[in-house]
Amino acid sequence: MASTRTGMGLQLRSLLKKEGMLELSLASIATPQPEADEVIVRIEAAPLNPSDMGLLFGGADMTTAEASGTAESSVVTAKVSPPVMTAMAGRVGQSLPVGNEGAGVVIEAGTSPEAKALLGKTVAVFGGAMYSQYRCVGAAQCLVLPPATTPAEGASCFVNPLTVLGMVGTMRLEGHKALVHTAAASNLGQMLVRLCAEDGIGLVNIVRKQEHVDLLKKIGATHVCNSTAPTFMQDLIEALVATGATLAFDATGGGRLAGQILTAGEVAANRTAKEYSRYGSTVHKQVYIYGGLDRSPTEFNRAFGMAWGIGGWLLMPFMEKIGAEATQQLRERVAAEIKTTFASSYTREVSLAEALQLKEIAVYGKQATGEKYLIDPNKGLG
Amino acid sequence: MASTRTGMGLQLRSLLKKEGMLELSLASIATPQPEADEVIVRIEAAPLNPSDMGLLFGGADMTTAEASGTAESSVVTAKVSPPVMTAMAGRVGQSLPVGNEGAGVVIEAGTSPEAKALLGKTVAVFGGAMYSQYRCVGAAQCLVLPPATTPAEGASCFVNPLTVLGMVGTMRLEGHKALVHTAAASNLGQMLVRLCAEDGIGLVNIVRKQEHVDLLKKIGATHVCNSTAPTFMQDLIEALVATGATLAFDATGGGRLAGQILTAGEVAANRTAKEYSRYGSTVHKQVYIYGGLDRSPTEFNRAFGMAWGIGGWLLMPFMEKIGAEATQQLRERVAAEIKTTFASSYTREVSLAEALQLKEIAVYGKQATGEKYLIDPNKGLG
Repeated sequence: MASTRTGMGLQLRSLLKKEGMLELSLASIATPQPEADEVIVRIEAAPLNPSDMGLLFGGADMTTAEASGTAESSVVTAKVSPPVMTAMAGRVGQSLPVGNEGAGVVIEAGTSPEAKALLGKTVAVFGGAMYSQYRCVGAAQCLVLPPATTPAEGASCFVNPLTVLGMVGTMRLEGHKALVHTAAASNLGQMLVRLCAEDGIGLVNIVRKQEHVDLLKKIGATHVCNSTAPTFMQDLIEALVATGATLAFDATGGGRLAGQILTAGEVAANRTAKEYSRYGSTVHKQVYIYGGLDRSPTEFNRAFGMAWGIGGWLLMPFMEKIGAEATQQLRERVAAEIKTTFASSYTREVSLAEALQLKEIAVYGKQATGEKYLIDPNKGLG
Repeated sequence: MASTRTGMGLQLRSLLKKEGMLELSLASIATPQPEADEVIVRIEAAPLNPSDMGLLFGGADMTTAEASGTAESSVVTAKVSPPVMTAMAGRVGQSLPVGNEGAGVVIEAGTSPEAKALLGKTVAVFGGAMYSQYRCVGAAQCLVLPPATTPAEGASCFVNPLTVLGMVGTMRLEGHKALVHTAAASNLGQMLVRLCAEDGIGLVNIVRKQEHVDLLKKIGATHVCNSTAPTFMQDLIEALVATGATLAFDATGGGRLAGQILTAGEVAANRTAKEYSRYGSTVHKQVYIYGGLDRSPTEFNRAFGMAWGIGGWLLMPFMEKIGAEATQQLRERVAAEIKTTFASSYTREVSLAEALQLKEIAVYGKQATGEKYLIDPNKGLG
């Protein structure tokens, strides 16, 4: 039921205190009056993505987490080590709202026709502070979901869908013909499997468990390599030869995996080379690291010639590179296919108060495949 | 004295035998009759660059080297390990000539006006097989040296000069404003110091010994950081702030140096940042690895945000990128400044036969700063 504004709303806040302590709490904030081109969205679903965890936990050691306050308004504290405090110096003392994306219903609108047209619509929004009951955002920031789409179905319209579209777009921009993806059984990985199948793009999936091989095969993945199998390097080389993939997106970051992918790529490229090339294959092999699931150092032995690169990859610079119009086309494709190609699934839906319970943090904080949470900031408060 | 052709000439050859053995020897080969647009160059000076060593030694363990044959025509053999043999599979059984670049006098010419115009001229050539008494090359491959330039002075017109010009060119192409260089006391490093001074480009030199700090300061370098000093990271950060350098060329490849440069770059970039950026600085920091002096694995801990890259860099793809005309302009600049900006120095000048003596291999094979050799393939044979 679309309630009218209450004037106040809860918002999840993350604060690093200079004493070396993280504090998570719920603040009660006044819902602003929308400007002419703004609307108020009652947020009903916002995912806890890996990309939200960094801001949420601020590098704190969550094994030291303690809870105080009431069940409805819990305060969580956890210790932050001195080196992390140094790295986080820029945010110390600031009470920061969290949540990159979410979806909900437009309950108030400014005076502009664009804003008014959104009244009552279910929209997805990418704009930070989504772990809030009410968010005031620009009408242009709202992506209208197709009829009969719930906020829960549209909650993850941006981070994962635009990331997989960004991976495919980067592949095309940089002249590669197929992709490698690690941690491939994640929500994002499954989405990439569906997108590549739909767009006819070769994809080599790398996972660490046999059950994830089975899961991806079941949803139609052709090439799935298990990095813990003794035949991993050989399997990977064969998959690279079969697909022609020379670009990888790596969510793990640490360890030897990025180097193994480049080494396998060099062997695959040399399979078809006609003469000895003293500096190795001239085929450029690229790995983009877009996550840090493995926090250990990255290590590689450069056994892959000179035509290679490893680098960081983020969605925002990609969207800036392709421009606003091309980005809007991607957003519209996501909305149109939000129940199919870009569908997400969640283990559990929690309220803001529940998101601050230690037993829930212990589950979603692991960022494990198949343990993804959705927050409904209005759950139990409607 | 410009001798006329003998019909035959010596050429240094490197052969990997399938039994796992490297064989270096001198072959006597017939000097071809030049085609219309070709000339015969009597090579009088060719440097032993680090980039020649890979092809020359083929990954053999030179501590196992043995010599046989006569002093005038020695044969050197050395063992090659099975993994190296696998990596070198593409060249096994082929007797390969060596030597990327050199200089000499044109003693015969084909019938074309371009070829005839070169008769008697001292020219530099980049084209492989330069450890030969006589080389038949296209007239267009010859870079005419200014009057009163000796072959020894013009021997290194390509690899090092075009590499330092390629570094500066890459810096401009990719939007950086200053450079970092490692192993900076090398011949190439000193050349880069002179080039950056002449062109007004900020340069941060990284070396491993105090004597190399002194050497570079003496030739006018402003920023020299010693990576073995306890203050290295702080010194590097200050130099990056002072110059604005965000691009590094690393000749060492292995170990933690590339990661240290990126980490220092991140700290330097955040010095001037105005607000907390959750994914780190948005300033792109790039390290290109163009050599492998340190054969240990490359390792880094990704403490430098997401806007970074590490990759291989080679001169040839750079020249292909800028095109033939721009490359020719660079070559002409090198010829004009071969005694100043692009001057090289050598420890010792040897004949082809001397280059195959174990005591000489033990010196030049180290690729140490200040131990660079020049081969005169016609020494003692004129």
